[in-house]
Amino acid sequence: MLSKAVIKYINSLQVKKYRNQHQAFVVEGAKSVIELLQSGFELQHVYVTESFAKEHARLLGKGITYEVVTEADLVRAGTYATNNAALAVAHMRRLPDLIVAPTELVIALDDIRDPGNLGTIIRIADWYGIEKIICSENCADFYNPKVIAATMGSFTRMQVHYLNLENWLQQHTTTHSIYGASLAGENIHQMKLQPQGIVVMGNEANGIRPEVAKQVNQLIKIPAFGHAESLNVATATAIIMDNFRRWA
Amino acid sequence: MLSKAVIKYINSLQVKKYRNQHQAFVVEGAKSVIELLQSGFELQHVYVTESFAKEHARLLGKGITYEVVTEADLVRAGTYATNNAALAVAHMRRLPDLIVAPTELVIALDDIRDPGNLGTIIRIADWYGIEKIICSENCADFYNPKVIAATMGSFTRMQVHYLNLENWLQQHTTTHSIYGASLAGENIHQMKLQPQGIVVMGNEANGIRPEVAKQVNQLIKIPAFGHAESLNVATATAIIMDNFRRWA
Repeated sequence: MLSKAVIKYINSLQVKKYRNQHQAFVVEGAKSVIELLQSGFELQHVYVTESFAKEHARLLGKGITYEVVTEADLVRAGTYATNNAALAVAHMRRLPDLIVAPTELVIALDDIRDPGNLGTIIRIADWYGIEKIICSENCADFYNPKVIAATMGSFTRMQVHYLNLENWLQQHTTTHSIYGASLAGENIHQMKLQPQGIVVMGNEANGIRPEVAKQVNQLIKIPAFGHAESLNVATATAIIMDNFRRWA
Repeated sequence: MLSKAVIKYINSLQVKKYRNQHQAFVVEGAKSVIELLQSGFELQHVYVTESFAKEHARLLGKGITYEVVTEADLVRAGTYATNNAALAVAHMRRLPDLIVAPTELVIALDDIRDPGNLGTIIRIADWYGIEKIICSENCADFYNPKVIAATMGSFTRMQVHYLNLENWLQQHTTTHSIYGASLAGENIHQMKLQPQGIVVMGNEANGIRPEVAKQVNQLIKIPAFGHAESLNVATATAIIMDNFRRWA
C-alpha cells in the first residue's frame, strides 16, 4: 500500500507550482506508462498492479525499479477515476535549444488553454511527423496530467517549447513561412501547401491575438460546406496538418 | 427561483430512460440555446439569466415564453459547472424516414460510445455539409446533454438515426459506395474521393466490428507520417470528411 506521504507527493504534482518545484510529473494508464518506460525520460517512481506487472514482465524486466500496488492506490495517487494498470512519476526533461530549420514543419499555439486540446494536438502532431510545438506562455502546461493523458503516449516524442510567441515569430518572419489559421484566410483546398513552415493556431474562443497575427505572412482557412460556425482547435489543427502533408 | 419539482424534472432528463419517457431533453449555455431558439424544435421551458434576456431581447421577443432565473438555478438544474446564460428543455423531434440518395455523403458510426466524440462528430459533419448520421444501436444517445453540448449548436441541423447498422448497410451495398476507416485501408491521399457514399467510423477502442466491416466495399486510411499509433475517432472523421470534400 502506498504511504500517505507518497500519495500526498503525487497528488501535489497535479499543480504546476509543485511540478516545477520537484521537476517531476505524473503519467497514468497502461498506454501512457508503457510509452514512458520505452522513452528516454528518467523515472522517479513506477507503481503497477499485479496484472500489469505480469502482462509487461519483459518491459519491466529491463532494469526498471517498480512497486506492485492496488488499483485503489493508483486511483488515490492519480487523477483517473479508474486505473487497473500503472502510474509513474518521471523527471521533467531538459529540451534541446529550439532551432527550426526553414524546411521543417512545426506548430505554434497562441494561448491554447484547454489541456485536452493541447494533448490532442500533441497526438496529432506526432501522427503527422511533427517534432516541435511552440507555445505562447499562457498555453496549458505540457506536464499537466490531463495534457499527458490526452497525448496517448505522444508526449514522449514531442518537444514543446514555451516562449514569447510574438517575439519568437518576429525573429523568423524573413526566414520562414508563417501561416495562421483564420476564418478570413485563403482556402487550403485551393493551395498546394508544402510541408514546411510555422503554422499558428489561435485561442479556443478568440483565435490568434492581433500582435501575433501581425507576424503571420499567410492566413489560411478550412473551407466550410455546411452551417457550423467553427471547428474545435484540435480538429482544425488535424485537418490543416493533413493538408500540409498531402503533397509531400 | 426554480422550484424543487422543476429542478428534479430537469435533472431527471440527464438519464436516457426519463428523456424517452418525457420525450424531452436539455440544452445548456448561450450558443446552444440561441441555436435551439432559432431552430424548429418545440420548446417546453426556457430559463435565462437577466443579462442573457437583455442581450437577446430581440430573439426572445419572437413569441418565446421564458422565465428569468439566477445562474445558481441554471447550475442546479443543468450539468454545467457554470452557466451565466440559459437552459432550455425541448421536445424530441420526429425524424423523417431515412433515405440516403446514392449521390449523398453520410457518416455511419459503429458503436461510438463517448458522448463527447459523438457531439464533436455532429459538429464536424455540420461543417462539411453532411445532414445525416447513421448510428448503430449502441452508440451514445444523441439527446445526452454531453452530446448536445459538444455539438455547439449543430444538433439542430443533424438527423441522427439509430438502427441495426449491419442490416442497414447490407441493404445499401449494391446501390451505395460504403467506405470504412481502417489502419489497413487505402491511403486517402492517393485517392480522388468523390463526396458521395456512406463512411463508416468504428468504435474508439476496437474499430469497426467484423460483421459491419463485411458490408464495407472500400477500406480507407489516413496516412501516418510520425509515430502516434492512432487518432481520436472524431479527429479521424474530420480529416476523412475534408478529403471527401476537397475535390467537390
